[in-house]
Amino acid sequence: MKLFSIAIHGGAGTILKSEMTADKEAAYKESLREALRIGYDILKSGGTSLDAVEEAVKSMEDSPLFNAGKGSVFNSEGRHEMEAAIMCGQTLEAGAVAGIRSVKNPVALSRKVIDNSEFVFLSGDKAEEFAKENALPIEDETYFYDAFRYQQWQEVKGSDKAQLDHTVKKDRKFGTVGAVALDQFGNVAAATSTGGLTNKKFGRIGDTPIIGAGTYANNKTCAVSCTGYGEYFIRAVTAYDVSAQMEYSNKSLQESCDSVVLDKMVKLGGEGGLIAIDAKGNVVLSFNSEGMYRAWANSKEDTLNVAIYKD
Amino acid sequence: MKLFSIAIHGGAGTILKSEMTADKEAAYKESLREALRIGYDILKSGGTSLDAVEEAVKSMEDSPLFNAGKGSVFNSEGRHEMEAAIMCGQTLEAGAVAGIRSVKNPVALSRKVIDNSEFVFLSGDKAEEFAKENALPIEDETYFYDAFRYQQWQEVKGSDKAQLDHTVKKDRKFGTVGAVALDQFGNVAAATSTGGLTNKKFGRIGDTPIIGAGTYANNKTCAVSCTGYGEYFIRAVTAYDVSAQMEYSNKSLQESCDSVVLDKMVKLGGEGGLIAIDAKGNVVLSFNSEGMYRAWANSKEDTLNVAIYKD
Repeated sequence: MKLFSIAIHGGAGTILKSEMTADKEAAYKESLREALRIGYDILKSGGTSLDAVEEAVKSMEDSPLFNAGKGSVFNSEGRHEMEAAIMCGQTLEAGAVAGIRSVKNPVALSRKVIDNSEFVFLSGDKAEEFAKENALPIEDETYFYDAFRYQQWQEVKGSDKAQLDHTVKKDRKFGTVGAVALDQFGNVAAATSTGGLTNKKFGRIGDTPIIGAGTYANNKTCAVSCTGYGEYFIRAVTAYDVSAQMEYSNKSLQESCDSVVLDKMVKLGGEGGLIAIDAKGNVVLSFNSEGMYRAWANSKEDTLNVAIYKD
Repeated sequence: MKLFSIAIHGGAGTILKSEMTADKEAAYKESLREALRIGYDILKSGGTSLDAVEEAVKSMEDSPLFNAGKGSVFNSEGRHEMEAAIMCGQTLEAGAVAGIRSVKNPVALSRKVIDNSEFVFLSGDKAEEFAKENALPIEDETYFYDAFRYQQWQEVKGSDKAQLDHTVKKDRKFGTVGAVALDQFGNVAAATSTGGLTNKKFGRIGDTPIIGAGTYANNKTCAVSCTGYGEYFIRAVTAYDVSAQMEYSNKSLQESCDSVVLDKMVKLGGEGGLIAIDAKGNVVLSFNSEGMYRAWANSKEDTLNVAIYKD
C-alpha cells in the first residue's frame, strides 16, 4: 500500500479553555474524529483525495458544531449564505460556490461544478438552480436553524458590525471547516466550507471560495485549506502563497506555512490558520490564534490525532 | 517631477484584421487614447495611482465598445451581471464586486468597498444596496442595452454554451477592461472591470473580481490586470503568480509575465493576456492571443501609445 495522508480543520481562533466544558470538548473531538475517519477510510480503500476531502468536509457540514452547512451562522437578514470550494492538485480543476442558502452540502455543490460545469465559480440563487439540476439535497430554513447561532446573531443584530463566529465576548472563533489529503495515486486535493461571518451584509464573500485565497491544490507543491478573518486571506492570496514559496523559493511545506501564517499574515494584521499537505504526505497545521479545531492521520502511523489548543 | 507610468487594456483575443474596418479601428483607438489620457493626467498632476486606474477604467466602462459597464454582454436571461476589482499596492487594500446589474460604474463601486466597507468582496443585489448607500449612479436596463451585444446573445441564446465576447465566428475577443499605474509617490495600483461571458448562467463569477486571479497590486513587486478566459486565470491564480515569481524567484517583470502568459497559461490551455507595471515604472503588455486592445504612457517619454495587434 502506498503512502496516504489527510488533515482536517474545524476553524481557528481564540478558543478559551475557561469557556470549554468537558462535554463540549468531547463533542468537538468526536465530530472531528468522525470526519477524519470518513476521509481516511476512503484513502485507505484506494479512493481519491478529491473524494476524501469532499466527504470529510460534508461530515463537518452536517454537524451543528461547525460554522458550515447545518451549523452556519446568520447574516444581517437572519438568513444563511454559505460558501465552499474544492480543488484537485492533479488537474488543477476547481469548483467554488458563494451565496448558497438551501443546499445541504455546499462542498458537494462545488464538486459538481468541477464535474458538470464549464465554469469554476457559481453564486447566489442561480447557483442553486445548478444544484437542483444536479439533484443535490436541498433543505429549508428550519434545517439550518440553530438556537446557539440564532443567539449569536441576536447579540449583534441591527448593528453595523459583522462578527466572526464567536461564542462569548473574548472567544473569537473562525468557524470555517476544511480538509486536505494525499491519496495513494500521489494526488493532493483541498476543500473548504463556511457560513461566513455572523451579521454579514451586502452579499459579502469571504476567502473560502476564492481559489488561491482560502483553498488551493497543486501536485507540484501542496494542498491548502484556510480558516480565519477572510478579508486578510483574500488580500494576502494566502493558500497560493504557500504553494508559490515552495515552487519559487524551494522552501519546505513547513517553512512556507510558517512564513505565511506566522510572519506575513501577522504583519498584515490577520488572524487564523491553515492546514496543508504536500505530495510526500507531510502535514502542517499552522495557526497564529489561540487554537484550531484539527485532526490528522497518515498511513505510516495509522492513528487518528485530534487537537484543539496549542501544544 | 518624479517618474510615473500607466497602461490600460480593453480586452484580448482573436481580433481579425479582416473584420476590422478603418472606422471601427479608429473608434477603438480613440476610446483607448481617451481613457489613457484621463489616467495619465491624474498622475501628471500628482494624483494617486488608485485614482488613475479607477478613472481610466470608468472611461472604458462608459464606452459601448468594451465589454464592461455600458457595453456589457447579456447573460443567459438577457440581463447584465458585471464584475470589477481594484487594489492598492501600498496598503494591499482591495475592493471587489460581482453580480452587479444596475451600477453605472462597477469599478467605482469596488473603490467604495475599499473606502467605506470592512469587507473586500461584495456580490449580487445586496451589493447594489451598498452602492445606493454610497450614492453611486444607478442606471436602468435601457442604459446597458446595446444592439450589437443583443445580437451576440441572440446567436447563442437557448444553448448551453456561454461565449466569450466575440463579434463573429472566428473573432474571439475577451472584452474585459483594466488599468495599472505607478504614481509619483512610488505606489502602484490595478483595476479591472467586465461584463463577463455572453450567455453565462448560474451566477457565474470570472477572474476579474478575484484578488490574485484577475487583479493584484503590491508595491514590493507589481500591479497586474488580466483579460482572457477567466476560468483558467482563476485556476492559475494568474495575477498573483506574476508577483510571486518576482518576489520569490527574483525575476524581472518581463520574465515573470512571459512565464505566466506565454508558458504556464498556454500549457493549461488558457488564452488571453495581461498588463503589468512595477515600482520602477516598467510596463509589460503580454498576450498569447492574436491581439489585445492596449495603450500605455510614461513620464519619461510623455507620449501616448495605442496598439491592437501584435507588433
